[in-house]
Amino acid sequence: MIAQVPIEVRYAETDAMGIVHHASYVVWLEAARVAWMRQANYPYTQVESQGLAFSVIEINLKYRQPARFGDVVVVECWVSELNARLARFEYRILMGQTLLAEGFSRHLVTDTHGKASRMPAAMLEHLRAHTTQ
Amino acid sequence: MIAQVPIEVRYAETDAMGIVHHASYVVWLEAARVAWMRQANYPYTQVESQGLAFSVIEINLKYRQPARFGDVVVVECWVSELNARLARFEYRILMGQTLLAEGFSRHLVTDTHGKASRMPAAMLEHLRAHTTQ
Amino acid sequence: MIAQVPIEVRYAETDAMGIVHHASYVVWLEAARVAWMRQANYPYTQVESQGLAFSVIEINLKYRQPARFGDVVVVECWVSELNARLARFEYRILMGQTLLAEGFSRHLVTDTHGKASRMPAAMLEHLRAHTTQ
Amino acid sequence: MIAQVPIEVRYAETDAMGIVHHASYVVWLEAARVAWMRQANYPYTQVESQGLAFSVIEINLKYRQPARFGDVVVVECWVSELNARLARFEYRILMGQTLLAEGFSRHLVTDTHGKASRMPAAMLEHLRAHTTQ
Repeated sequence: MIAQVPIEVRYAETDAMGIVHHASYVVWLEAARVAWMRQANYPYTQVESQGLAFSVIEINLKYRQPARFGDVVVVECWVSELNARLARFEYRILMGQTLLAEGFSRHLVTDTHGKASRMPAAMLEHLRAHTTQ
Repeated sequence: MIAQVPIEVRYAETDAMGIVHHASYVVWLEAARVAWMRQANYPYTQVESQGLAFSVIEINLKYRQPARFGDVVVVECWVSELNARLARFEYRILMGQTLLAEGFSRHLVTDTHGKASRMPAAMLEHLRAHTTQ
Repeated sequence: MIAQVPIEVRYAETDAMGIVHHASYVVWLEAARVAWMRQANYPYTQVESQGLAFSVIEINLKYRQPARFGDVVVVECWVSELNARLARFEYRILMGQTLLAEGFSRHLVTDTHGKASRMPAAMLEHLRAHTTQ
Repeated sequence: MIAQVPIEVRYAETDAMGIVHHASYVVWLEAARVAWMRQANYPYTQVESQGLAFSVIEINLKYRQPARFGDVVVVECWVSELNARLARFEYRILMGQTLLAEGFSRHLVTDTHGKASRMPAAMLEHLRAHTTQ
């Protein structure tokens, strides 16, 4: 399953170059992950309510073209790797047919104190059913 | 006591108008409050370690002149009102002799769940000794 | 005209108290202003394309109840004062029937260098038709 | 040359997990780049004043340990690759002896419209003298 998440650029997300600041995209990726989870019928708040978190251990983003205030971009988001301990999300940020950026994030399943943990079997099974591999 | 807190403008804090975005100032005020607490020998982490918080209940900022990337501004910060339940901080943001912005924030003393609480007498006494009234 | 702008809380907008950081609301107000302009059929990019800006000269926000990750809030936004040189927007942030915050922002009409300017008569007339006074 | 840039964690940079949000680190890297440029006696504003920019084309960050409000971290920053068209900065974020995160950013030399350009020979020579290769 690929979630397609529209995001309207906020003025606060731009910088003095007149374009979206590169750190703003990192926040968009997170919003897209959250949307993916919701579309997978497993909202992230349900992860949290079991005392777990998908703690970010790596972020990678390649920037191709800038976005500007007023643009509406679409973040495509899917899961490419998933096991009880780790997840990897992939992202493409598009405006129309134009690829603005692409990247991935890697996540460690932890408890709420950041200690490595494992997804319960039911969570893993549920999410795996929506994973693109 | 007036804390004078130097802040170097980050590129990420600017926007497409080429100046610092107005929401960035709100973050600077908070950094200045934290510095004021430290200068008063009562670091904010010590408030937190007693299960309390200074929850923001009002923010007011008047913007006079813009700041830009590369500028170093000084946030002056002092406490103008203080009792066991409420605190009010005042702020002036300056670049050299030029006033860029001024404002205040009001805070309710709460527990960590946001429920109204009271400062212990020792905390109140300590902070009051540094308050400008 | 009152714009009602739904905003889904992003994880990045929360802080270590477990609630939305107070500076995040300031960004939401801006998103609501932008939505108001669009609903008034005068997108903010059209202001910019005439070499003008609504530069923020004051922000005031009163915080009543916190919002949390996963919440969907609605920012109500309307214009309460408007002339060729100045605009004032009002805001209420709601979750269901609960008022989370309310405030206003004041704006000076400037050129893109921040110098005070005036709206052309057509812009003023157009916006005034949507103003609640 | 390795710049060592102390950064005090702001409350606004934390999230509901009680730790610094991963996007905040991206802003710190930028602050460290700016400090590196200054230490190399070539402030970034001097790049801008020649109509050029170091546009971010890639960001990579690996997160090892969290930082928290009140922590003072040090971002180590150096340049590992540099030619007239491209630069690569490396980063390590430390608290005391503990490595919190490490990563790199890649930058394309562009004009202020984002079009690929080249550093003048004098800029390149100056920066290269401070580059670790």
